[in-house]
Amino acid sequence: MKIVLKLGGFLFPKNLDINLINLYIDLLKKLFSEGHELVVVTGGGTGARDYIDISRKVGSSEAICDEMGIEYSRLNARLLLSGLKEAFPEVPVNLHDIKRYFKINKFVVMGGLQPGQSTNAVAALVFEIIGADILINATDVEGIYSEDPKTNPNAKKYEEISIKDLLEIISNKQAIAGSYDLLDPLSLTLIARSKIETWILNGKNPKNIEKLIAGEHVGTKIVFS
Amino acid sequence: MKIVLKLGGFLFPKNLDINLINLYIDLLKKLFSEGHELVVVTGGGTGARDYIDISRKVGSSEAICDEMGIEYSRLNARLLLSGLKEAFPEVPVNLHDIKRYFKINKFVVMGGLQPGQSTNAVAALVFEIIGADILINATDVEGIYSEDPKTNPNAKKYEEISIKDLLEIISNKQAIAGSYDLLDPLSLTLIARSKIETWILNGKNPKNIEKLIAGEHVGTKIVFS
Amino acid sequence: MKIVLKLGGFLFPKNLDINLINLYIDLLKKLFSEGHELVVVTGGGTGARDYIDISRKVGSSEAICDEMGIEYSRLNARLLLSGLKEAFPEVPVNLHDIKRYFKINKFVVMGGLQPGQSTNAVAALVFEIIGADILINATDVEGIYSEDPKTNPNAKKYEEISIKDLLEIISNKQAIAGSYDLLDPLSLTLIARSKIETWILNGKNPKNIEKLIAGEHVGTKIVFS
Amino acid sequence: MKIVLKLGGFLFPKNLDINLINLYIDLLKKLFSEGHELVVVTGGGTGARDYIDISRKVGSSEAICDEMGIEYSRLNARLLLSGLKEAFPEVPVNLHDIKRYFKINKFVVMGGLQPGQSTNAVAALVFEIIGADILINATDVEGIYSEDPKTNPNAKKYEEISIKDLLEIISNKQAIAGSYDLLDPLSLTLIARSKIETWILNGKNPKNIEKLIAGEHVGTKIVFS
Amino acid sequence: MKIVLKLGGFLFPKNLDINLINLYIDLLKKLFSEGHELVVVTGGGTGARDYIDISRKVGSSEAICDEMGIEYSRLNARLLLSGLKEAFPEVPVNLHDIKRYFKINKFVVMGGLQPGQSTNAVAALVFEIIGADILINATDVEGIYSEDPKTNPNAKKYEEISIKDLLEIISNKQAIAGSYDLLDPLSLTLIARSKIETWILNGKNPKNIEKLIAGEHVGTKIVFS
Amino acid sequence: MKIVLKLGGFLFPKNLDINLINLYIDLLKKLFSEGHELVVVTGGGTGARDYIDISRKVGSSEAICDEMGIEYSRLNARLLLSGLKEAFPEVPVNLHDIKRYFKINKFVVMGGLQPGQSTNAVAALVFEIIGADILINATDVEGIYSEDPKTNPNAKKYEEISIKDLLEIISNKQAIAGSYDLLDPLSLTLIARSKIETWILNGKNPKNIEKLIAGEHVGTKIVFS
Repeated sequence: MKIVLKLGGFLFPKNLDINLINLYIDLLKKLFSEGHELVVVTGGGTGARDYIDISRKVGSSEAICDEMGIEYSRLNARLLLSGLKEAFPEVPVNLHDIKRYFKINKFVVMGGLQPGQSTNAVAALVFEIIGADILINATDVEGIYSEDPKTNPNAKKYEEISIKDLLEIISNKQAIAGSYDLLDPLSLTLIARSKIETWILNGKNPKNIEKLIAGEHVGTKIVFS
Repeated sequence: MKIVLKLGGFLFPKNLDINLINLYIDLLKKLFSEGHELVVVTGGGTGARDYIDISRKVGSSEAICDEMGIEYSRLNARLLLSGLKEAFPEVPVNLHDIKRYFKINKFVVMGGLQPGQSTNAVAALVFEIIGADILINATDVEGIYSEDPKTNPNAKKYEEISIKDLLEIISNKQAIAGSYDLLDPLSLTLIARSKIETWILNGKNPKNIEKLIAGEHVGTKIVFS
Repeated sequence: MKIVLKLGGFLFPKNLDINLINLYIDLLKKLFSEGHELVVVTGGGTGARDYIDISRKVGSSEAICDEMGIEYSRLNARLLLSGLKEAFPEVPVNLHDIKRYFKINKFVVMGGLQPGQSTNAVAALVFEIIGADILINATDVEGIYSEDPKTNPNAKKYEEISIKDLLEIISNKQAIAGSYDLLDPLSLTLIARSKIETWILNGKNPKNIEKLIAGEHVGTKIVFS
Repeated sequence: MKIVLKLGGFLFPKNLDINLINLYIDLLKKLFSEGHELVVVTGGGTGARDYIDISRKVGSSEAICDEMGIEYSRLNARLLLSGLKEAFPEVPVNLHDIKRYFKINKFVVMGGLQPGQSTNAVAALVFEIIGADILINATDVEGIYSEDPKTNPNAKKYEEISIKDLLEIISNKQAIAGSYDLLDPLSLTLIARSKIETWILNGKNPKNIEKLIAGEHVGTKIVFS
Repeated sequence: MKIVLKLGGFLFPKNLDINLINLYIDLLKKLFSEGHELVVVTGGGTGARDYIDISRKVGSSEAICDEMGIEYSRLNARLLLSGLKEAFPEVPVNLHDIKRYFKINKFVVMGGLQPGQSTNAVAALVFEIIGADILINATDVEGIYSEDPKTNPNAKKYEEISIKDLLEIISNKQAIAGSYDLLDPLSLTLIARSKIETWILNGKNPKNIEKLIAGEHVGTKIVFS
Repeated sequence: MKIVLKLGGFLFPKNLDINLINLYIDLLKKLFSEGHELVVVTGGGTGARDYIDISRKVGSSEAICDEMGIEYSRLNARLLLSGLKEAFPEVPVNLHDIKRYFKINKFVVMGGLQPGQSTNAVAALVFEIIGADILINATDVEGIYSEDPKTNPNAKKYEEISIKDLLEIISNKQAIAGSYDLLDPLSLTLIARSKIETWILNGKNPKNIEKLIAGEHVGTKIVFS
């Protein structure tokens, strides 16, 4: 399967958890050895947030703050690459690189690309560029909820949600816990225009990704009917 | 004044109008000679649309179609540059280039940057990057209307419109003639986050731009209160 | 067979013909799937000519006009690439790129390279760089004629012509219909110095290319005895 | 004066100190506005060390670990740049960039360059490349000591030390507190071969740098007689 | 005056003559300090010829041999740059670089650009790109002769020669001593198409260049009437 | 076996010896065809030394002199590449290139990388980057000697030498004939930190390399116990 896997900031807190990183390295090696084609997109995490905050405080425009976060996310991509000799050994920094690197090697690890685009939007663009089969968005909650599950224990997790409902939720500014990052308008626009098969799941347990790829329903699926 | 000027596709129809192009070359030279700092962002036009359409028909993903449009918009940027020896002689292709070129020479001409971003979004990002004073969006209608002025002669042109109203209009999918391109969600998000002073005006008459810079109210202004 | 195929401007008129483009996409896929190694060099066409003309009129030097044509020819290369997922996904912009890309993937599509060189000269340089077997120059007439076949119906098409005769014809400024582009001095110098097996044929019928590769004599062959 | 200023990891602990960063931004602006030419080289700090450690633990070679530290040091350079609109807006990544950027703008901020070279060695190379007047190495102790001042309160700080003595100390593996980073053999080789006027001082107090530039003797000076 | 100066291989024999190199460094500094704008294009010389010969003998195509010569000519450009701190500190490797570097600094030193083009053709392209006033081709004879002055002492040096006569001479394969390099068809095509004011003179005496710039008639001038 | 082979300046004297070059081309083809993975690092030689000397004499800093030597060593790499169609066709110029090129093709030829690093240090960095098995340093003497074998006929060649002894010898400034280049502190630091299996042997006879790879003890081995 041709997989784009977005690994959110949960994997890159300021105090890095080598155990979780090792689990991911093992998982990615396994998936690649089984014949899957992979592009992994890493987020920034709390370390990135520190750099962004200070950058803003000393006078950066928002675009420069974005750039700081992008650079940090690339550092995270390099960190994963440290343990992945099977992957292409460099981090692409634009879509031309992605096309080139993925032509050479069907396993690429990368961070953000350009100000004004979240790494979720990047993952959707990569999906289009390589003609992927599935986009997996690994985050720190179980999927998309009706309300913030951290504040409301009765929040309902969706098994499926239509892109139309998602777009409406955003324009109504309804809070959706854990899904903020996913739900930036650009990501959804891209998911909608190319009807990208997208799953949101909890990446703190890497098993969830394995299960999903094995055919189980894990987390929330975005549908287009 | 530090100006970002978006020149929409109206300037680059399939049958190029050398007279209008010459008017713009003269205008830009004049503004630069008066001490203004300029980044000009060119759109694609109908020639670009042909390439995009055929690209899609022979099997491109949307991201590759975007890329085709970006390349075409850069061709348009080069065309303007042909007559602008005062400008930096190369077209930036990413935000790093923009920073570098604008540091060297306060007059840069460019097209699009990356799939998933309209040239309107690019203009907003450039505004942030260089810390501009004003973003002028030259298009083929007089400004933002309550309805499509081409189909409804009673449509009312706004002198000002708040970013909040604009965002609402989009989520309600109300048709706004001539402003489609401007109103992609990403552009508005960027305009909102940096409170970018943005004007939409009719670029078919380059005098409008001169008047605006001279202090007149021309077209529609986006406001943030 | 290691083939360099020059596709002249006939394939890229201002109003693109999607049917002919599709025929070429199918032909190229077929040739590659049969084991041939391919570098395709695209010309500019009438769209390019418009951009060059206006560029010159607003003050460009000849080198900048050439550059405009080169960029346009690359756009044409990208257009073909849209339908060719088998090919290397990026357009080389210098001879180093060609070496790199062809090492990775034996199917590359490209446009011009540098002012002062026609795309015919580029095709000859690529022939040298990759050590090709044959250079096919697909143009809009049946081959090289004794006179302009468009104005003189009695013009005789050569089955073969020696490089020596060709060079003489040029220095005598004899008109040779349809072969102007081929016959720039640089192209011929390169063809002569490396004794490049060169065929000029009518590309408006892509079958001609198939036949030639299958061993038929189609068009005019340049010989070195 | 043409100054190369190495800012050690003390300025970039895992929990960034915005006050100290602001002091440095103010200092650098002041020096530049007074007519000094500046290249600032930033180290990695404890955040970098985390990334290097995990990189090594998941299987990186030493060269890749170095690369991780280099990328982190560049992040630090960007952070400083956030507040320095007077500086060249991009971080050079090789010596060619340095030459280009410094030709354009006499104020450049950068991190490391290449595995196998500490940022101290980088600072010395930059000194040679731009033909600087002085190399200031701001670290977290007052200068070079006869012994580790953190463990031995009687350690004597040198006002001056000859390059010959320094090289001897290294080969004898004598511990010299706070100067470890400075004293890698490559840095000293470069300092020696170009007789680079080098000062080691405590950068935790940015006033030390101002005083030194104003002509005071602060910290330890390396001499060549 | 905006000057393109081609320095032929005479300045770069296998055993370099530091005295002549120093004379050129002094001359170029002087011209630049007097307000002239300069692009210097260096040839290969006999050292280059060795590398080209061996490259061909071990199996290179002509294009790769050209590349070897280009790299060597760039080495020569760097050598001159060693003594020219006033010039832009990097050697351009394509026409985009030339535009960028010359915009930053009106003194650029470079070698060849691309296979299939002599450094004479490069000089003519640079002339077009920067809109120069004069192209000076410094070679190892006094100008263009009616016959080879090395073999025929009665050979007549032309004060002026028309481009038409030059082109005829080439097609008639007449030997013209010392002008071989100048007279490759591509160089002449470029000189003709842009009516480039071109002078061929003896560069072994750098005074000739000074005199020419001061208004004297030195060597042979190509004329276009 | 994954081999890094350093070919010292002996292979690139000012008067190139095509016979020795051909022997090396044949040897490298043979090793690659037998399944070995190869990175070849070429030194500068006496031609390089000329360019460095003149560069210094006309005013270069040491870093610029280093750069001149690096460019020359890359020319030597290209020369070898002329005869090696099996190798990756371009010369890497930084460690990122090396990773990329070696991922594509397990046969890479290169020169130096950056001022402050000898090509011996480069070879050690490449060893780390690609995770090689052996580093062979082909020079112009039989190995490491107790004294200079050229001046003292009784000098003893070491079969093995410990890295510890080597480091001591350097700090004691003992002369070691023919090994100067190998023994720069940076190279040894890298060899020590990664316990690189390093052999120094006489490259004037390419058979030595074949024998070593076949399992014979040839030259001097650096050991780490």
